[in-house]
Amino acid sequence: MTAEARGLVYLVGAGPGDPGLITVRGHQLLRVCDAIATDALANPGIVDGARRANPAVQVYDVGKRGGDRASWSQDDINALLVRLGREGKRVVRLKGGDPFVFGRGSEEALALAAAGVAFEIVPGVTAGIAAPAYAGIPVTHRGLATSVTFVTGHGDPTKDEPDVSWASLAQAGGTCCTWA
Amino acid sequence: MTAEARGLVYLVGAGPGDPGLITVRGHQLLRVCDAIATDALANPGIVDGARRANPAVQVYDVGKRGGDRASWSQDDINALLVRLGREGKRVVRLKGGDPFVFGRGSEEALALAAAGVAFEIVPGVTAGIAAPAYAGIPVTHRGLATSVTFVTGHGDPTKDEPDVSWASLAQAGGTCCTWA
Repeated sequence: MTAEARGLVYLVGAGPGDPGLITVRGHQLLRVCDAIATDALANPGIVDGARRANPAVQVYDVGKRGGDRASWSQDDINALLVRLGREGKRVVRLKGGDPFVFGRGSEEALALAAAGVAFEIVPGVTAGIAAPAYAGIPVTHRGLATSVTFVTGHGDPTKDEPDVSWASLAQAGGTCCTWA
Repeated sequence: MTAEARGLVYLVGAGPGDPGLITVRGHQLLRVCDAIATDALANPGIVDGARRANPAVQVYDVGKRGGDRASWSQDDINALLVRLGREGKRVVRLKGGDPFVFGRGSEEALALAAAGVAFEIVPGVTAGIAAPAYAGIPVTHRGLATSVTFVTGHGDPTKDEPDVSWASLAQAGGTCCTWA
């Protein structure tokens, strides 16, 4: 590492599960990056493929898991990304689905911006669209569903009131997708 | 073509514009298919790349365009896909964004099913998520936007009343994206 090394963190959507549904750009970045920080929702085959093509890559499994299993806090994940970025590394932060759809990617982007670490968003296919599609269900259809709403299945547990106005969503019509 | 040839139509999302945002699976299919039917919203660079890698591919530019420019009707597009499928061809129907988000992919799927032509959906990155992301805007953020709604900018012109309940969407809170 030299003083000139400039780290860059890519917040990359891994897509909804099928490894073929990551984007070409995300796939390419995984093959040239110095480090990968992957969550538990990204298909493990994606990271395995990256390791084979890029054996020197450092992999951090920062998935959040339920129950008693060891788990990374969001603060720890943010701190890891900032540290790697400051070390001048090119980092792929691999997130299931799309990083900005219930992925807490925006919180990671804020932490990176506050620390002065450059970052880039690489959108992904969101499960809210793709999971119904694989089951043959279009989320929109001309004349039947002219809007589609995606609602988090995980509200902020520190709030007393739910963040979501279910009654208004029901009145709005259109398709409504939620997932936990 | 033999009597055994089985056509297959892939309804593929091209993503929001950046050619790197097509999926790996979509990218691969473009390199092995017999025919491509592309709309006007898919990045032309994607089709150009496919032609270079797959010079024998037949390309149909079936984009709908405004004004006086020649344009394909949806019925004509459906008929083309059915004909190519019945000829035993592997066809990529390339659509901007995701085929099931305001892409009329569901209408094409219905036409293929009615004609007994096999098809498969290959989801894509929707512009409703990716365009704001490229501008630095997350469509969800914990505690601020726990839902996101995508609304068509093109209602069905044969209807007297709008299909969209804008008042209910406003009451529902969360992020609301529309595009024309």
